[in-house]
Amino acid sequence: MEQFAEPRGTRWALGLEYDGNGFCGWQRQLDQDSVQGVVEAALSRVAQCPISVVVAGRTDTGVHALCQVVHFDSPVLRRPEAWVRGANTALPAGVALRWARVVPDSFHARFSATARRYRYVILNRREKSALWRNHTAWIYSPLDVEAMQAAAQTLLGTHDFSAFRAAACQAKSPVRNLCQLRVVRRGDLIAVDAEANGFLHHMVRNLVGVLIAIGKADRPVDWAAEVLASRDRCRAGVTAPPGGLYFVAPRYPAEFGLPVDAMDAGFLTGD
Amino acid sequence: MEQFAEPRGTRWALGLEYDGNGFCGWQRQLDQDSVQGVVEAALSRVAQCPISVVVAGRTDTGVHALCQVVHFDSPVLRRPEAWVRGANTALPAGVALRWARVVPDSFHARFSATARRYRYVILNRREKSALWRNHTAWIYSPLDVEAMQAAAQTLLGTHDFSAFRAAACQAKSPVRNLCQLRVVRRGDLIAVDAEANGFLHHMVRNLVGVLIAIGKADRPVDWAAEVLASRDRCRAGVTAPPGGLYFVAPRYPAEFGLPVDAMDAGFLTGD
Repeated sequence: MEQFAEPRGTRWALGLEYDGNGFCGWQRQLDQDSVQGVVEAALSRVAQCPISVVVAGRTDTGVHALCQVVHFDSPVLRRPEAWVRGANTALPAGVALRWARVVPDSFHARFSATARRYRYVILNRREKSALWRNHTAWIYSPLDVEAMQAAAQTLLGTHDFSAFRAAACQAKSPVRNLCQLRVVRRGDLIAVDAEANGFLHHMVRNLVGVLIAIGKADRPVDWAAEVLASRDRCRAGVTAPPGGLYFVAPRYPAEFGLPVDAMDAGFLTGD
Repeated sequence: MEQFAEPRGTRWALGLEYDGNGFCGWQRQLDQDSVQGVVEAALSRVAQCPISVVVAGRTDTGVHALCQVVHFDSPVLRRPEAWVRGANTALPAGVALRWARVVPDSFHARFSATARRYRYVILNRREKSALWRNHTAWIYSPLDVEAMQAAAQTLLGTHDFSAFRAAACQAKSPVRNLCQLRVVRRGDLIAVDAEANGFLHHMVRNLVGVLIAIGKADRPVDWAAEVLASRDRCRAGVTAPPGGLYFVAPRYPAEFGLPVDAMDAGFLTGD
């Protein structure tokens, strides 16, 4: 490995893409393949010493990521290309390292993030899909995207999102600022783009579950705001399945210079 | 199964989507999984008698299809929904039946087709992809899309495409009318859309191989026309890999009323 002219104990930020299929989610588990587990194993191989990473946003089983971000402190000196090429050689096909950047010690993948972006992709047609089966959630009932979009707009802003929070959620506060919730259709595909300062456990999938019920006309447009106001998880109904969900990227202050805003969230639909 | 009020020996046209991964290509083989093999097995199960199909355009190992079209003559009476739902229950996850339509006996999936549309999708970035690894061809050298598009325009029209034809090609004539060859970029993805009255064996992948060499600046823009004029397969160089290739749909005269023109070819890039 080449030497890189940085002091020992350099803090690095990495951008990771992964396919949630085949992993038990982000978090390391003793007896199952986790994304964290394979990433730490690959980095440890490049470093030739144990490396632990801190993640911007944990993801559940089956959830994908376009640009997950992690940080770690390396006791060894490596060039950025050594991390990227070395890790990509060691990683399984379902995980790819996109970039590596030196960051100041003040950077923290989770606490420095000012926002997180997610995309949920629905395949909305009567017949199953052969091509996108592992990368979309299939809803065969016709969905009214205009109703979904109208309902989405009633959820924007700073609210107590307890009604959209999983029972297992460990967050101290249920208050979040949801600054984007946009529903767009292209042909058979519908994308729901969500951005907030942070999301509660299952929050995106619970928001999408409510929008789907409204899109099917099982519920009126007003129902989304009613569920929100109730702060009652029992009101929101079904959690949308994980296979349609993508962690797009976190946002960080510009001073860190990380290539996260450039992540193109328009995949599959072009929007 | 329900009865359908049509005379015996009804001719049916079907639209099929498939993921080329895991199949040895379209054509039935004795010892490998072919798309034709699993489709005929599923239809035979619905019909409860052996069914053989005729395809619009055979595809090679690893090549995908958005809307492949087949026809067959059924000695049994079934509703369209019975074919679609019954076959989709029997088909493996990588193949989906999208629609079934009764057609006149004059319809022939291959000979009635007036044109075929293909899309080739390239992932053009330095790092491998975790998410689209099975659905794109990865080219890590930066590609100049404007040069590729300029070269593509010099290939349009009716020509002898011998230089882009595989040695194994069984077509009687190497003359084809290439009416579209368009190169578009969206972020890291590049799509090449091709339409012709018909394609020779490996023709799309050989056209893309020439465009990639020009996109890398290994060859000048003029080289595409030179290769075409040479009619010599040895000039064209590398055949692009199959995993980026999609058979989008055939075109048929409007009188048959098949839903093939509506197929949205803008997947992945939105164009």
